[in-house]
Amino acid sequence: MRATLLYQAGDVRVEDVDDPKIQNPTDAVIRTVLACVCGSDLWPYKSAPRTDNPRHMGHEFLGVVEDIGSEVTTVKPGDLVVVPFTYSDNTCEYCRRGLQTSCVHGGPWGVGGIDGGQGQAARIPYADGTLITLPVAEDSELLPDLLTLSDVLCTGYHAAHTAGVAPGDTVTVIGDGAVGLSAVIAAKLRGAERIVLMGRHTARTDLGREFGATDVVADRGEDGVAAVRELTGGGADRVLECVGLEAALVQAAGVVRDGGVISRVGAPQYPAIPFGFGEFMRNLTLTGGVAPSRAYIPELMPHILNGDIHPGRVFDRTVDLDDVAEGYRLMNDREALKVLVRP
Amino acid sequence: MRATLLYQAGDVRVEDVDDPKIQNPTDAVIRTVLACVCGSDLWPYKSAPRTDNPRHMGHEFLGVVEDIGSEVTTVKPGDLVVVPFTYSDNTCEYCRRGLQTSCVHGGPWGVGGIDGGQGQAARIPYADGTLITLPVAEDSELLPDLLTLSDVLCTGYHAAHTAGVAPGDTVTVIGDGAVGLSAVIAAKLRGAERIVLMGRHTARTDLGREFGATDVVADRGEDGVAAVRELTGGGADRVLECVGLEAALVQAAGVVRDGGVISRVGAPQYPAIPFGFGEFMRNLTLTGGVAPSRAYIPELMPHILNGDIHPGRVFDRTVDLDDVAEGYRLMNDREALKVLVRP
Repeated sequence: MRATLLYQAGDVRVEDVDDPKIQNPTDAVIRTVLACVCGSDLWPYKSAPRTDNPRHMGHEFLGVVEDIGSEVTTVKPGDLVVVPFTYSDNTCEYCRRGLQTSCVHGGPWGVGGIDGGQGQAARIPYADGTLITLPVAEDSELLPDLLTLSDVLCTGYHAAHTAGVAPGDTVTVIGDGAVGLSAVIAAKLRGAERIVLMGRHTARTDLGREFGATDVVADRGEDGVAAVRELTGGGADRVLECVGLEAALVQAAGVVRDGGVISRVGAPQYPAIPFGFGEFMRNLTLTGGVAPSRAYIPELMPHILNGDIHPGRVFDRTVDLDDVAEGYRLMNDREALKVLVRP
Repeated sequence: MRATLLYQAGDVRVEDVDDPKIQNPTDAVIRTVLACVCGSDLWPYKSAPRTDNPRHMGHEFLGVVEDIGSEVTTVKPGDLVVVPFTYSDNTCEYCRRGLQTSCVHGGPWGVGGIDGGQGQAARIPYADGTLITLPVAEDSELLPDLLTLSDVLCTGYHAAHTAGVAPGDTVTVIGDGAVGLSAVIAAKLRGAERIVLMGRHTARTDLGREFGATDVVADRGEDGVAAVRELTGGGADRVLECVGLEAALVQAAGVVRDGGVISRVGAPQYPAIPFGFGEFMRNLTLTGGVAPSRAYIPELMPHILNGDIHPGRVFDRTVDLDDVAEGYRLMNDREALKVLVRP
C-alpha cells in the first residue's frame, strides 16, 4: 500500500510499504477512506532531523473495516469507523476514567511498527477499544465533520471540558487554527455566554464567529491582553490555549481573571511553564493536556449527526494521498487552514 | 509600641515604632495577643538585602480590638479577633468569589505603611472585611489553635480544597512543615481515605500521623516517588505541594497519577514550572496558590471550637516578642517546627 513517510524536515514522501495484516487477535485492518493533516504534524515537518527510518505520518483518519482478529467483537468487516488519534484498550483503569491517552496498552500512530493515518490502510491494535462505528455511508457528506472526531474537535472539546466551561461563562480562546476554532465550537456547546477568540487571520476568525465566537481580538501581546480584559470586564473566567507556544501561555495568563483556569491543548513547544510567584499570588489553575478523543466521541458524534455543529468546515483544501506533501506545504505556509487527504 | 523589623538577611530586630492609630473610618486598631513566625517569613530572613527601610514582619496574629473607625460595624472594642494573613474589603467581586487575596482594596501586612503581625499592636484596614471575631476569652487554651486560622491551617486547607480532595481519595502531601501538616488535617477533614505524607523529620511526620496521615515516606527523589507509587497503586489522585521548591514540584509530578491534580501552596522559590511535553501528555493539572484565609475561617473555626482538630500542635516553641530573633533562628535551623510569639 501507499503511505506517507517523513524523512526529515520538509521531506514528506508517499511510498510503497507493507500491507497491514492482522497480527494479534485484538487487531483490525481498515481501508482508509479519509484522513487529514494535523497542526501537530507540522512540528516534525518543521524540525525533524534526517533519518533512514522514516516516521509514518498521520493520526486523524476514518475508514472501512476489512478484516478483524478472532477476539474482536464490536466491529465487523464493512463497518465505517472513526479512529481516535491514539489507540487504547478501553478497559484499563485509565481508560475507565476516560483518559485513554494514558492507556497502559495504548500508544500513538506511526511509530514502533504501528501504521500512520495518512496511508491507504492501517492495522488497528485493540480494535474493540479503539474504533467507534459511524452510522453513515462511506459517501456521506458528513464524513469531513465526522473525521474531526478523530482529533481536532475532541482536542478543542478537551480544552473546554478540562477548563470546566459551563453555561454563562466568559471564555477566551487563544489561537485561530483548527483547534482554536474547534474550542469555540466546544465552548458554545457547553453554554459559554461570551466567547472571545484571539487570532489575526480574518478568514479564520470569521469562521470562528460563525462557530460561536462573540468577539474577536486580533492584537497580540500587551495590546491583545488589554483588549480582552476590557471586553471581559477584567479578564476571562476560563482561557483555552490552543497554540502550544510559550508566548500563548503568557498571553493566557494575561487575559485570565485571578482565580481563573487556563487549559492548554496546544502541543507544548516549550520546556517549562513561565508561571512563578506572580501567577501563584493570582491563584491561576493550569489544566488540559493531550485529548482522550475516545472518551468524547460518543458525546460529540450526535451533535454532528443532528447537524448542530459543522466542525468539518475547518477543512479548506483537499489533496489526494500522492499529493500529501503539497498539503503539508499549504498548511505550513498558512495557505490552508486544514487539509483533507483522500487515499 | 514594639515591633519586629527585618533589616537584612539574618538581622531581625525588635524596635520602637509609632503606635497605630485609626487613619480611615474603616480601620480598627488591635492590641496583639498572639502571633507566630511563618515558614514564608524565612525566605526574606534567608535572603533579604540590607535596607534602611526595614520591613515590618509577621502576618499571622490575633488580638483584641482597642479602637474602631466610624464606619466599622462588625467588631467593637474588647472583641477578640483573628486576622487573616492579607487584609481585604470582603465586598469586591474577588472577595465575593472567595478570593480575598485578590481583593481590589486588599494587600499584605508589613509593607507600604501597613503594620506587621509580630508587634504589640496593629492598624487593620477594612476591619469589617478583614477581621473575624473569636468566641472565646483572651486566655483560652484554644488560642494557639485559633491562631492557625490566620494562615497555616487555611493554607493547608486551600491545597486540599483547590485540589478537590473528596471522600475516598488518595492524597499525597509533600512537605512535613507546618503547612504540610495542616494539609494533612485538611485532607482528612475532606474525607481522604489514604493520606501519604512525604517528609523526613520523624518528630514532624509522627505528628502528621496523629493528624491523619496513613503512611509516611521519608525518601526523596526517585526513591520517594517509587515508594509512593507503590503505596498508592500507581500514583496519587491529588498531591498537595507544601514546600515551594522546584524539586518538590518535580516530586509532585512523579507521585501523581496521570490525569491527577497537583495543588501548590508553598510560596514559589522558582521562576517557572518545569512541566513541558511529558506532563502535557499525562494531563496533569496544576492548581493552588496563595490561600484566601478569610474565605475558609468561618468553615474551619467550628472544627477547632468543637475539638475535632488541634492544628495548634504545630507550635513547639514560644518566645516573647523581644526574643523573636531567636524564634527565627530556631525555625531557620530547624530546631523548631513553628514558633509562637507573645507580644
